[in-house]
Formats: sequence, structure tokens, C-alpha cells
Amino acid sequence: MDKRELLKILEEVKAAKLSPEQALHRVKHLPFEDLDFAKVDHHRAMRQGFAEVVFAKGKTPGQVRDIVRAMLAKKGSKHNVLITRADAKTFAAVKGASKAAKFHSLSGVIAIERNGEITGKGTIVVVSAGTSDIPVAEEALLTARTMGNRVEHLYDVGVAGIHRLLGHKEKLAQARVIICVAGMEGALPSVVGGLVGVPVIAVPTSVGYGASFGGVAALLGMLNSCASNVTVVNIDNGFGAACVASCINRL
Amino acid sequence: MDKRELLKILEEVKAAKLSPEQALHRVKHLPFEDLDFAKVDHHRAMRQGFAEVVFAKGKTPGQVRDIVRAMLAKKGSKHNVLITRADAKTFAAVKGASKAAKFHSLSGVIAIERNGEITGKGTIVVVSAGTSDIPVAEEALLTARTMGNRVEHLYDVGVAGIHRLLGHKEKLAQARVIICVAGMEGALPSVVGGLVGVPVIAVPTSVGYGASFGGVAALLGMLNSCASNVTVVNIDNGFGAACVASCINRL
Amino acid sequence: MDKRELLKILEEVKAAKLSPEQALHRVKHLPFEDLDFAKVDHHRAMRQGFAEVVFAKGKTPGQVRDIVRAMLAKKGSKHNVLITRADAKTFAAVKGASKAAKFHSLSGVIAIERNGEITGKGTIVVVSAGTSDIPVAEEALLTARTMGNRVEHLYDVGVAGIHRLLGHKEKLAQARVIICVAGMEGALPSVVGGLVGVPVIAVPTSVGYGASFGGVAALLGMLNSCASNVTVVNIDNGFGAACVASCINRL
Amino acid sequence: MDKRELLKILEEVKAAKLSPEQALHRVKHLPFEDLDFAKVDHHRAMRQGFAEVVFAKGKTPGQVRDIVRAMLAKKGSKHNVLITRADAKTFAAVKGASKAAKFHSLSGVIAIERNGEITGKGTIVVVSAGTSDIPVAEEALLTARTMGNRVEHLYDVGVAGIHRLLGHKEKLAQARVIICVAGMEGALPSVVGGLVGVPVIAVPTSVGYGASFGGVAALLGMLNSCASNVTVVNIDNGFGAACVASCINRL
Amino acid sequence: MDKRELLKILEEVKAAKLSPEQALHRVKHLPFEDLDFAKVDHHRAMRQGFAEVVFAKGKTPGQVRDIVRAMLAKKGSKHNVLITRADAKTFAAVKGASKAAKFHSLSGVIAIERNGEITGKGTIVVVSAGTSDIPVAEEALLTARTMGNRVEHLYDVGVAGIHRLLGHKEKLAQARVIICVAGMEGALPSVVGGLVGVPVIAVPTSVGYGASFGGVAALLGMLNSCASNVTVVNIDNGFGAACVASCINRL
Amino acid sequence: MDKRELLKILEEVKAAKLSPEQALHRVKHLPFEDLDFAKVDHHRAMRQGFAEVVFAKGKTPGQVRDIVRAMLAKKGSKHNVLITRADAKTFAAVKGASKAAKFHSLSGVIAIERNGEITGKGTIVVVSAGTSDIPVAEEALLTARTMGNRVEHLYDVGVAGIHRLLGHKEKLAQARVIICVAGMEGALPSVVGGLVGVPVIAVPTSVGYGASFGGVAALLGMLNSCASNVTVVNIDNGFGAACVASCINRL
Amino acid sequence: MDKRELLKILEEVKAAKLSPEQALHRVKHLPFEDLDFAKVDHHRAMRQGFAEVVFAKGKTPGQVRDIVRAMLAKKGSKHNVLITRADAKTFAAVKGASKAAKFHSLSGVIAIERNGEITGKGTIVVVSAGTSDIPVAEEALLTARTMGNRVEHLYDVGVAGIHRLLGHKEKLAQARVIICVAGMEGALPSVVGGLVGVPVIAVPTSVGYGASFGGVAALLGMLNSCASNVTVVNIDNGFGAACVASCINRL
Amino acid sequence: MDKRELLKILEEVKAAKLSPEQALHRVKHLPFEDLDFAKVDHHRAMRQGFAEVVFAKGKTPGQVRDIVRAMLAKKGSKHNVLITRADAKTFAAVKGASKAAKFHSLSGVIAIERNGEITGKGTIVVVSAGTSDIPVAEEALLTARTMGNRVEHLYDVGVAGIHRLLGHKEKLAQARVIICVAGMEGALPSVVGGLVGVPVIAVPTSVGYGASFGGVAALLGMLNSCASNVTVVNIDNGFGAACVASCINRL
Repeated sequence: MDKRELLKILEEVKAAKLSPEQALHRVKHLPFEDLDFAKVDHHRAMRQGFAEVVFAKGKTPGQVRDIVRAMLAKKGSKHNVLITRADAKTFAAVKGASKAAKFHSLSGVIAIERNGEITGKGTIVVVSAGTSDIPVAEEALLTARTMGNRVEHLYDVGVAGIHRLLGHKEKLAQARVIICVAGMEGALPSVVGGLVGVPVIAVPTSVGYGASFGGVAALLGMLNSCASNVTVVNIDNGFGAACVASCINRL
Repeated sequence: MDKRELLKILEEVKAAKLSPEQALHRVKHLPFEDLDFAKVDHHRAMRQGFAEVVFAKGKTPGQVRDIVRAMLAKKGSKHNVLITRADAKTFAAVKGASKAAKFHSLSGVIAIERNGEITGKGTIVVVSAGTSDIPVAEEALLTARTMGNRVEHLYDVGVAGIHRLLGHKEKLAQARVIICVAGMEGALPSVVGGLVGVPVIAVPTSVGYGASFGGVAALLGMLNSCASNVTVVNIDNGFGAACVASCINRL
Repeated sequence: MDKRELLKILEEVKAAKLSPEQALHRVKHLPFEDLDFAKVDHHRAMRQGFAEVVFAKGKTPGQVRDIVRAMLAKKGSKHNVLITRADAKTFAAVKGASKAAKFHSLSGVIAIERNGEITGKGTIVVVSAGTSDIPVAEEALLTARTMGNRVEHLYDVGVAGIHRLLGHKEKLAQARVIICVAGMEGALPSVVGGLVGVPVIAVPTSVGYGASFGGVAALLGMLNSCASNVTVVNIDNGFGAACVASCINRL
Repeated sequence: MDKRELLKILEEVKAAKLSPEQALHRVKHLPFEDLDFAKVDHHRAMRQGFAEVVFAKGKTPGQVRDIVRAMLAKKGSKHNVLITRADAKTFAAVKGASKAAKFHSLSGVIAIERNGEITGKGTIVVVSAGTSDIPVAEEALLTARTMGNRVEHLYDVGVAGIHRLLGHKEKLAQARVIICVAGMEGALPSVVGGLVGVPVIAVPTSVGYGASFGGVAALLGMLNSCASNVTVVNIDNGFGAACVASCINRL
Repeated sequence: MDKRELLKILEEVKAAKLSPEQALHRVKHLPFEDLDFAKVDHHRAMRQGFAEVVFAKGKTPGQVRDIVRAMLAKKGSKHNVLITRADAKTFAAVKGASKAAKFHSLSGVIAIERNGEITGKGTIVVVSAGTSDIPVAEEALLTARTMGNRVEHLYDVGVAGIHRLLGHKEKLAQARVIICVAGMEGALPSVVGGLVGVPVIAVPTSVGYGASFGGVAALLGMLNSCASNVTVVNIDNGFGAACVASCINRL
Repeated sequence: MDKRELLKILEEVKAAKLSPEQALHRVKHLPFEDLDFAKVDHHRAMRQGFAEVVFAKGKTPGQVRDIVRAMLAKKGSKHNVLITRADAKTFAAVKGASKAAKFHSLSGVIAIERNGEITGKGTIVVVSAGTSDIPVAEEALLTARTMGNRVEHLYDVGVAGIHRLLGHKEKLAQARVIICVAGMEGALPSVVGGLVGVPVIAVPTSVGYGASFGGVAALLGMLNSCASNVTVVNIDNGFGAACVASCINRL
Repeated sequence: MDKRELLKILEEVKAAKLSPEQALHRVKHLPFEDLDFAKVDHHRAMRQGFAEVVFAKGKTPGQVRDIVRAMLAKKGSKHNVLITRADAKTFAAVKGASKAAKFHSLSGVIAIERNGEITGKGTIVVVSAGTSDIPVAEEALLTARTMGNRVEHLYDVGVAGIHRLLGHKEKLAQARVIICVAGMEGALPSVVGGLVGVPVIAVPTSVGYGASFGGVAALLGMLNSCASNVTVVNIDNGFGAACVASCINRL
Repeated sequence: MDKRELLKILEEVKAAKLSPEQALHRVKHLPFEDLDFAKVDHHRAMRQGFAEVVFAKGKTPGQVRDIVRAMLAKKGSKHNVLITRADAKTFAAVKGASKAAKFHSLSGVIAIERNGEITGKGTIVVVSAGTSDIPVAEEALLTARTMGNRVEHLYDVGVAGIHRLLGHKEKLAQARVIICVAGMEGALPSVVGGLVGVPVIAVPTSVGYGASFGGVAALLGMLNSCASNVTVVNIDNGFGAACVASCINRL
């Protein structure tokens, strides 16, 4: 629409229906995005290129259902739909919009798969430390899969039982990108980062108590990682880690 | 050496010089790394694959010179040598080990280029907000270049003068990976992340005063970025950002 | 009353009913405010000059209703009445005191308009970053309007989609004062501040999770803003921002 | 230049030298600012409208002198020049560029007055709590004056001797904008805010020890001010407070 | 009992029933408190000297009632009984133990007065800033009164309306000790401290939101008070402030 | 199983069924733990050597019951079973798996004793400061007992009544290891540490309010202890303290 | 002067030289303090009643000397002069103003005694924990003595060697007010508070390292003291503690 | 002396020189330590049992020398002397007191060995992560050795190169107690704790920058360790860790 509008103005100039001055005036007052700067919005593009996303927390089940219905109604789009931080009530509502919706109660993710195409070049492996970290790990795993990536997981390989991690190094070796989820002391990304040559996206979780300070201990641990292929996202941000990992996996 | 040692044991079993029980005993007591697990050290491999690195802070000029000399003396290695957080005295000492050493005083980086090969697939663009952020940006830039990447930079494009950034969006569009360096409120990665579809490694700097708390304000800003292709490294860690970016740029 | 009392004393001195010494004694023991220092209370005056305000949180619906009734019963006052941080129950009670009360459920504001006079000289524009920031933005908007200002809003213009903000720069250009509401990294005021020449009141919100620390990340970001026309109020303090903006808009 | 370039393209379309498609392509690749968005930089405009500013900290005396020389050499500009956070050595260097430079050693401000015009509509009054807060207060005062405002000051009126403040309420009453500088508990802006009906810009200072945490106690005190006409800038940011005050004083 | 036991040993030595060596052995193994060191427990003594105290929070209504019953059953004691942080249910239970119990719902204090004796030498005045601070102020007031002090209060005299405080300086002048309760910026003790010559016990409250951090802003403000007769107790610790004030008021 | 597998390979080499090269390949791809590195898992061994442990928080009653059932079903194991952070519902479920289960409601510990053997060499004494610290103290006490230690306790010996502690120094003198539990200012371990010559494991509790910051004040106090035989575990971590104490008590 | 001025006005009214209205106008515009509100300044009065005080830090030796000279020159004043946070250079300068000046290098206190009168009713005992706390303890001791109090001290009685403190309980028993100085875990005031029935002013010191965070650990410990006769002043504020103690000791 | 004094009193009772009442009076007023409570000072005993210790920081070289001289002059004592946090100047001074003094410049430890006796039952192994952690590790190692323990070390085995640690598990297996020193993310104790069955004393170091916050990140990591045999001491407290380890190693 936007390119077309500018083109139309230019054609009217060509056809002498508009003087250059009139055209100048109209060009300058076009809404910004009409200047084909929609491409500026790579960010939205990027996410849409992967999947349509709804953050359910803070929205009513009805609101989420309506948003999903609108997404599904878009012509020509076959993107998968991903709903994060949802609960059973929201799922019941979303079911009304799409029979294909599946609920992953551990992580609160609802996924509507309309497109099984794999667009990521390699495998994203999600590694997590303790059983309590699994909800965040699952959010990352399901997000990455819904965005068109091959995914694998390796759970419950905390650093206090290091042989469990070492016993699965072939799985680590398959990864093109690793998402590493850990609470408490957040030490896992350093160990994993030292075992592989690919980027490691570290996700601190709010798992723990006392001096874990809701994930701050894990966050600081990861920011200070002595492995130089580790970067960090916000506490409990499994979704964000999967976005970055997808973004890397398409390069 | 390690594979060979295990093979030798096995051949002695074959030749009946060792009973399987004796062999079992010896295998179990081999030093770990002798089991060809040197390959486990992907991390070191990864860095060495890029360059030899010395962190000069806390070492005397003489110590740095000796380490560099040893690096240069390794047979068969043609890796570049990178010395970070150095000063003029250290440079004078390093000059004694290699005439090819070059000092970048702004960032405290000394680089000895022995190998101009470009092994990264695309361009890494280093973007920074204010003039005071340039030392960290330069550390990132020089690290990335020494590790075999094409690099570009875009400095002084802070968000309070947003047109300066927007005026260079072609440069951003060239990037395969972006390193985004900012102090104070640390807002630049969010804006840059929204303009591109590639991963953005955010580096908070300790630039600022008062409530910047030595880079904490920028760090928190970046961890909370509303752009979903942003990950974060430690405050002032230009070197680490470049390591991750290199790692991604080789995928 | 107070001026009169002092005058009476002076007249009694003139009339020789009091000796100067007796008068001195009485003046020194007058209650402080009797010396016409009621005018000292510019602060209350200032707010009353705008509107009568009730902070509903921590008060029962009945208490709020009674306060409102008393306000409405004041003779000669035609001020608007503003109730902040209210809920549906409080609204039901307030309805009993005034049929004109209107409830804005998103922000929890109840407004009773008795006076549509516009006393602010220009327009206050409320800008906000994400949909979750809207409750705080609405509190600011409604407060400013009830205090007699022309208001406009510009919502959902977060910095990760910068073209959305730039596409509405004419609206920013209309503002005499801007209130800029943002959670997470709190970067919006810096960008907005760079686009305009008028004062920007930044309001951090507690929107976010993990390392947003209930609005601290946004607060620090705003305090470190690289735009020099930005000042900051407390987290979620939409009401306070509107008070300051009103105060400026009357200058 | 930019409008002209777009006009030229449009005229070439009119003249059929360019097809609309070619024109579309060229328009889309124009540097952003060529679209007359230089006006976007209101921020720089705003500060330049007031004065040319150099932040001396972190720059050598020679660098500061060269910047100042370039400022003074701009044709047609008669702006005052303000150098903040300078020392005696920098002043000696700046003297070489302008005999008119004056050094205020308490605050580290160097001012070169070329233009005594008063463009602010009212008086900005700078109030400060203790003698140790005076350097920050002076930075604010000199910045505001150099930017074309009438200024007054009221120093050493800390809240533990409240009568000293109350004894000067006529001076407060003259203000169109107040800048209020305080360290330690930062209580002054609340008291001052309660005495006046104009906006109060609060500046916490790093004065204090122990639990003042370098100005954090004062900062938090000011953010929680119970006076509703108070906004806050960063710790020790006298310059920033004066920028905002100037900006308000021109409305 | 303890003195007696030691005396008995000594008498047995005198009576040659114990050798000095045997006596030495027995003395050394006496439980500590048997050596009349019960007097060491001045602390408990001190509080008991004032009143019997129960901290109800975390105890069931039945537990509180039983403790109270035991206190009332002690022979010879006529101390007042004070129960802090209680609710209506606890009060109902305590009523079962004593008809004289009175519940102050605002502060959650239950008092059983058995002894109206005034043992404090002067008046303790409790001053508070805002209406939300009153529960903590009341806890202080009731504690002080129950411990045998004359008490007065002065509420809602926040620093943003300074004339309200100044209008009651005679009440301040009556105080032998002042307890000053304030949330938000916690500025009141500095102003009060500057107006009087007696000790001021400052109590920060958790009243506020956002950057008040549950009372930390007020606490820091008070610790940094520029008035030199101010000391500080824990956040919301009205009870503790009254204990110290009582302790001072008996000197 | 693991030793056997390696032995089988070696025997096949001996029997010439495998070439050394083939054997090498198979050895290198054995899962890590198959190389008899299960013994690496001393950590799990250590805890299992003591008792089977389930952390009930975050698990449903049914999940806990099933885990317990599986533990009890292990052949040849007679370990005690310890369930921490449980509630009455979980206990009801666990009862279904074992009639021998006992619930300690204060600390939320469920213990199933199958083995009364004492394996610790000396006595572990658990000391606590206030009555509110008892739940954490009990968790430590029951954990230590279930892990095969003689235990004693000494409760309500806070430092503000120092004679109470001193009156029981014989009990302290019996200890081989002391666990010292305290909230608020966390001073008890320093005093206890000064009275004994054995290691003191300090456990801060989240007991307190205001500036106790959920146990941070106690934690910092303990980390800064001036007694040199004190080490610290996480806030409220009675279980962990008992694990370390058991570990020491077996040396 | 002030009373006289008001009296003069009143006499002019009596003499009909001024009309009551004219008088009213003049009274209202008198500087505040002229209304005999100098008495409002109880705070300054209070300190002056004790001693003249100069805070030397941040002042040049010459400035301190000049201030001292002015103090000594005041007619009719025989107050002692106290200079805190001074060094040897400042002392040399002060010597030039008064031969009687004495320097206490440990605490940086300079005292000029002109008046040995004891005005405090009882003894102030300064207790400190470790040898490193002595500078702060000395500041408190010398301040209290200069302000006219009998003082005693009890140093190096840290809680990890509790018998040292208990061995001096007679000295504690002599105190009317106790100042208790401690760094690291700050536990001493709780123990001391439990041993006495008089008020204890706790002074945290910045002594310590690591998790002492410059005195924060001690500060938090003291704020959470389980002894109810303890109040707290700022970190290292020996001077402030002595001011409060003096203020109490005069009651 | 103390026992004797009490005995003397008892004998005077026996001899009827003192009545029991007089004796009671005298016993009650004996200085505390005279009651043979010197034995209460187990803490000092414990350290003296190991070695005489001087903390040199904050003392002049001359002061340290004098303390050492006094220690060496004590009759009958053959304890080793340990001086921590010393520098070359202090060493030069100490040399004057003892030719046997040896300086370890890396850690700032001076040791005077007078007694090579090994009193610890097993070996203390000091493990450290990076080269920058070695000073703290050395302080621990030298302290432990001086206190009569067999010691081993294992340096530069950070978790990002996990095979280096695993390659030395026999050394870990020799330990009776492990001291584990790490900065940055502080992950090493978790991994080491998982590999052994003995107690691990974790020492966070202040090594790192940015978000390491002077050792806080490492400290929090260690407090949240998922290995249950880990306890923690203060940042950089190698000495304290060795004291605890010695204390355990004597059990």
C-alpha cells in the first residue's frame, strides 16, 4: 500500500496532475510509514516472519481470543500463532477461535501450528539446570519450535552433578545455538559455554529463595560468565531467548 | 597423544600383553584429558581459532611481554595476538617482543596482526551512543577485527538525536551482527534492535554519574529492552561482545 | 480573620487600650497562621486552584463518598473533583454523592466535572510506550484534563518501533508540555526529549518483570536521560506528573 | 538543501527525465535528514538556542580550547559559551581562545558571555540546603544565567533551621521556576514546593557520607516528595536542572 | 533462689561440710543465672518494668489469649498488658481472658490497663506526617501511654505544608521526648529536630509506592538528617520508638 | 553395568572380535557415566548415604507421594526418607505411601524413619535466637537427625538476653558441630562462635520486618562475623546447614 | 534587636506616628526572624548551648582557622570549640588562632577547651567493638566531653569474646547514656542493650571489607536490633551520636 | 589467678575470716573473668591453639613489628606467627623482630614458622578458578599451613574449561576439607561440591568488573549453590576460610 501510494503521487506528477510543489507537500505530510518505511520496522517484520505472538498475561481470555481470531482471519498469512503466559481459562477461550490450539500447561504456552516449515538452518538446543527451571525452558523450546526451528532439549543437568551434562555432550555438539536456562547460582551457561563453540543464550530464572533475590543471583552469575560465548537476557525470559536464538539460527 | 595411548592399551589387549581386567584398570585411571577430551575444550579452541588473547590489567609490562613472546614462538601458529586493557608502558614492553605491535590508546588495545584472513561470513557493525562510550566500542571493534571479521562502526548516534541514527540506516542494514555500546540510560540497543533483523549484542558502559551507578542503569535498561533481538553482556565488556559476535558471524 | 486580629491589636494600641509591651506579648503568642500565613500554603492553594483531589487507595468506599460529599457541599466552590486509585465499589459509593461522577476503570480515576474551563495556556500531550503503560498514562491524562488543560495522547509508540513515534511528530509539535510514560527500559523520554523543545515530564512505570525491579530500571534510565529537557517523577506517579505539567502550563 | 533535492527529483519526473519507478527508488534511498528532518533535531536546536555547551570532564585542556575556538569562529552566531566541570588548567587553555572567558572555581564553570540578552520570561531562583551543596547550585545558577535567564539565589536554608527559609519567602515568591539543590536527606524541595505555586526542579547532591550512598538518599527523598510540584533530575546535575528550568522559563 | 544457693554453699564451707575445693567445683558448675545474674537481664527487666508485651503477629488468637491469661495470673504483678500487631479475631479471644481489654483497630494494639501510674518524668509527643502514617504513630502513642508516660500527638503536619507544623510549636515545646513518624521522603524529623532542643526518635514508615521501596527512602532520609538530635529505629517500628522514648523519659 | 560394558569391549578385543580401532571408537562414544564415572557423583552419593530427600514445595501432594513410593520400593535400600517444605495435604498423601511417615508441622518436615543407625561421630547442636526462628531451626534439627546424627537444641537464646545463652554453655560444649539460626540482626553466631572451638554453620532467617529485608540484614551480619569459626548458608536454608553439618560430623 | 524593632513599631502606633494599617503592613514585611523567632532556632541554640562546632572536611586549613578565630572573638561566649574531621595541616593553622587547641589525631578532632563546666547529669559511656572502630568511638567521646559531659570508655569488647564485655558490666552500669560503636556485623549494641536499662545510641562504622559494604551490614544489624532500647545514627557518625547523647544527658 | 582467688575466698570462709554473707558479696563483685571464665574465650584459644595472628592492614610497620616481638617473647609459646595483608615495608620491619620471617608477596602474608607440627588430621586442598583469584587462594593456603595442616592446591581450574578440573579429581579425592576460591560468577564451588563428599568452604573474591560488584555476584552464586556441602565466608576472606577449615580438620 505504501509504495503504491508514493508511486501514485509520482505518476500523477508524471501525468502533470500534480505540480512538483504539490507533490512535495503531499510527500512530506504522508504518514511516516507510507514512505515505505514499513521496512524500517524490521523488528515487527522479524517476529512476524517467525510467528504471530500474543503475551496473554494482563489480558482477559476474551481479549486473547479476539486477537487470535483477528490473526487467523488475516488473508494470505499462514504464520503459526504463539500465546505466552496463558492459563487454562485462556486456553478454553482460544479453543473457541481455533480447534488446532494446543496448551502446554507447564510453561503456559498455547501454540496454533499452521505451518510446519523449518526455516532455521540448524538445531537449537535448550539446556536447563533443575526441574524447577523447566517452565522457562519449555517456553523457550516451544517458542523456538513455533518460529520454525528444529529443537532439542537437555534437562536437569545442573552443575553439581557435572557428569550428567558431560554424558550428553553429543547433544550439545549438535547445536547451532544453545539456550541455557538456570536459576539459583546460574552457573550452567559457563560450563556449557566452555564445552561448545556456538553462541549460548543464558536465561536466569527466578527459581530459588533467600539470597537468590528472585533471579538476581543467577543473572549476575551469567553476566560475569568466564565463558566468552555467553550473552544474557532478562530473568525468566524464555521467549526472548528463543527470539534471539531464532534470529541467529536464520543467519 | 591421547587417542594413541588408548589405542596402545587396546593393542596390548589384542596382543594379550594385558588382560581385559588390567586394561580396564588402566583405562579408568588415565588422566581425563588423555581420552581425547582435549576436544572438550571447545572454548579455548574457539578463542584460539580466532586469536591469542592477553588481559593486561593486573599484569606487569614484563609479564605481558613474556606471554606475548611465548605466543609468537609457538610453531605453526599464525594467529593474531590481542592484548586488552593495556597502557603505554605495556606497549613499550610488547614492542620489544614484536615490532608489528600496534597500540590503540583510546581503548587500551594492542594488536599484533600476523594473519589478515577474514573468516567471519558477514560484517559486524559497532554502534555507540556518546563520545565517552568510544573506548569500549573501540575495544569491541578491534577485537572483532583481530578475530577475522569485517567491521564497520557508527559512533555518536545517541537516542536523543534520533535522526543521526536514522540517517545511517544503510550502514545498519549491512550488518550480519550488531554490537551496540551505550552508557547512561542504555536506550540505544532497543532503538537499533527495532530497526534491524539481525542479532544485537548490547554492551552497557560505566559512562555517566550519579544514578548511573557505574553502568547499572544502562545494564538494566538493556536487560529490559523491548526489542526481542537484543542480548546483553557485562558492563564495559567490549571484548566479550566481540567474542560472541565473532562466534555468531562464523555460523 | 488573621489580618483582622493583628489589626485589632494595633488599633487597641492606638486607642491606648493596650500598652506596646502588652501588644508585643500578644503578637508573639498569636498562633502562627494568624499572621496571615495561611497564604504560605501555596501548595494546597495550587492544587485547589486546579481541582479537589482524593487518593482513594487505603480508604473505604464510604469514606471516599463522605469526603466527596463534603467537597461538593462547599459554598462557592465549583472545582472539579478528582478521585485517583479507585475501584468499582468506590465508584458505586461516589455515585451516591454525585450523579455526575464518571469512572475510568483502566486507570481507576473517578472524575466529577463541574467546571469545563480551560485554564492551561497550551496543550499537554501524554505519550506512552506500551499497552501496559496505558493505566498510568490515563491517570496522567485525566488528571491534567480535570485540572483545566487541553490534552492529547499518543500511545503505543515504544522505541523498538521508532517509526511509529516519528510518524506522529506533528502531535508532539503541538505540545506545550509533554508527559512521557514508559516501563521496562524507560527509553522513550530520551527519544521524545530529543524531538521537541518543550519540557518533558518522565513517568517510569512498574511494568515489566525480572530485572525491571518494579520500575527501577525505567526510573534509572530516565534519570540518566541524555536529553536535557527531561525531569522525572516517582514510579507510576501519573497524577504527580500531571500536577507538575499543569503547574508549568499555567505559567 | 533537502527539500530542494526532493523537489528536483519531482521536477525530473515532471520533465520525464525520471520514470516514477526510478524516482521511487531514489526517494527511498535519500539520506533521512535530506527530507527536511534536520528540523527533527529540536533538541540540539533548543540547547543552541540557549548557549553553546562543552562538558570539560574527560577532555584535555587543549581539546576544550579547540572546541571553544571553533564555536567562537562560527559566523553569525553570538551565543554565549558555557564550559562545565572544568578546572584551572582548562581555564588557562580556554583563555587562549577568548579573553572574555571567566572561571567560577567553586562549580568548575567557565562562561564566555557574548550576548547579555534575557530571553527567559521570569526569574529562576536557585535554593540550596547546605554550604557543601553550593558547587552544584552554582553550576545551575551560572548555566541558567548563561542561557539568558534572570537568576537569584538563596543558599544555606536547610530544613533543620526552617526559619531561615521562611525568612526569605519574598524571594521564593519572585520565582517563575525554582531549582532546589540538596544533599543528605534531600528534604528541602518538599518544603519549598509547599511554599510556592511554581514548578520546582529538585537536584540531589552527592554531599553526605555513610547511608547517603553518594546522593541516593537525597534522590529517593526527592522522588517521594509529598509536594506535587516537584520533579527530579540526576544526582549533582545542576546543569540539567538549569536546562529544564530555562526550557520552562521560555514558555 | 540463686543468691540463696550460693549462700548455702558458702555456709556449708563455713560449716566444714564442703572443702573449699569442693565448693569451688560446685560454684563453677552452677547454672550461670544462679549467680544472681538474673539482674543481668536488665533488658527484660526494663520492659517488664514498663508493661508486659505480646507481639501477636504469627501467633493464633488462642495462643495470644493463653499468654495474656498467664500474665494476668502472675501474683503481685499489676503491670499493664500490651499486645501489638493484633486483629479483631485476636481481640475477641483476648476479651475472653480480660474484660478490660481495649482494641485500637487502626494500629492493631490491644491494651489492658491495670495500672494508671505515670512513671515517665515528662510528656512524649508523637508527631506524624500524613494520614497514612497514623497506624504506626498510634502504635507508638499507645505503647508509650501503656508504659506509663504522659503522651500528646500532633498528626498530619507534613513538611509540604510547613505552616501546619509551625502553628503548633507550643505543643512541640511541651515535649521531653519526641517520636516523629513519617513515610515517603521522611523529612519531618529534620524539621522537627531543628525546632526543639530535646531528643527526636525518628520512625520511617513503609507508606508510599515506587521509589519509596517500602520505607527505605524514608529510612535513608532520617539517617542522613541534618538535625543533630535525631536518631532512628527500624521501618514501621512504632513500638520500638516508644520503648526508647520511655527509657529516656525515665532518666 | 558400566564397568561390565567396558570389560566386555576389552574381552572382545582380546577375542579378536573387535579391532583395537573399532574398540577405540566404541569406548570414545560410550555415554560418559558408563566409564564408571557414576562414582563421580559423590554429591548424590553423599546425600543418599544420609537419606533420600524430596523438596515438596512446588510439587503436588500426588507427585510427592509417588516419588516417596518409588524410594521405598528400591530394593536393598533402608535409607530414611526426608520431605522438606511440605504441608498437611502433602502429609495426607504421603501417609498413603507409608504409615510410618511423621509430620512436623512447625517446620513442614515429613520424616519416614527406616533406619535408626547413628553414623555421625558427635552431636550436632542447633541453637536459635528467637521463637520465630524455630521453624528453620527445626528443619535443620530434623534433617540432621534423619541423616543419622545425634542432635540437641538450644532455642530462644537471643543476644539481647546474653545470660540465657551463657547459662547453657555446657550444652554448647557437647557439640561437635553447631548450627546457629537467627533472623533480625543475625548476631548470635558471632557470640556462639566465640564461646566454642568447633565449626559453627550460621543460618540467617527471613524473620523480621522493614530493614531486615527478608533476611538480608542477618545474612550480612553473619558474613561479617568477627568469630573465625563461622560459615554461612543461604537465608532460611536449615536443610542445607544440616547437610553440611552431617558431612562434617562424619569426618 | 528584633523585639525592640517590633516594640518601636508599636510605640509609634501608640504615638500615632503610624496608623494601625501602616503598622500592619510593616509587621507583615519584617524579616521572619525579627519577630523574635530566633528562638525558633532551638537547634542551633542547642548545639551552641553545648559547644561551637566546625566540620573541617572540605574546608581549607585557612578557612577553618578563620571560622575558629571568629568564634573565639564573640564577646561573652565561653563555649568550647570543637573541630571534627580535621588533619595535621588544619591543626597547624588552628594553632595560629588558639594556643589552647589540642589535636586528637586518631579521630581527627581538634578541641579548644575554654570551659570545663559539666552540664550533663550523668556519665556517657562509649563502648566499641574492635580496635579499628576506635577513631569513630574517639570522635564520639571527645564530642561528648567537649559538650560538657562526664565520659568513660570501654574499648575492644567485641561480641566474639563476650566475657571481655561481661567482665566490665560495672562500667556499663554507671552509664546514664551509652554510645555503642561497631563495624562488621554490628552486633554489639544488641548485647549491650540487653545488659542495661538506659538508652543505647548505636553507631555503625565503615570498618570491614567485602560484604560489610562500607558499614551497611552493621547499620542493618543495628536497625534490626532485638534490644528495644537501641536507636541508630548514620555510619561513622560519632559526632551525631554524641550530640544526641548530650541532649539526653541534659534532660 | 582466678581460680586461686575464688579458692582463697572459700578458704577464708572455712577459716571463718569471712562470713558467708561477706563472701557472697565478694564473689558477686569479682570481675567476671576471675571466675575461671577465661576458658569461655574458646575463640581466642582456638586461634592461639593454631597460631598467633596479626592483621597488618591499618597498622604501621612499626606497630606490627612490636606486636610480633611481644608474641615471640612470650615464654613457653612455640606457636607459629602469621601476619596477613602485609606489604614489603611491613616485612622489612618484621625482619627486625625475626630473621625467620618469610614474605609471600602475592598474598601479603608473612609467616614465622617456629613449629612444623601437623595437628590437622587430613589434607586441606585449596582450589581456585582464575589466575586473579590466586592471592586470596594463597592467603588461605598459607594460613592453613601455618595453623598445622597438610595443604595442597589446584589452581586455574575455572568452570569454563571443566576438563581441567576433572583431570585432577584424584587431588580432590585426597581432601578432608576443600577451600574453593572464585570470583566473577563464583560457580566453582557448586561443581567441586558435586564431585566430592567432604565439606567445601567457598570464598568469593572481588575479582571481576562491572556487574561483579566487587565480589557480590560470586557471593550470591555461592550462597545459592545447588551442592549441599558448600558453605560460604565473606568476600576475599581467605584467612577466615582457612580458620574454619583448620577447625574442621582437627575434629
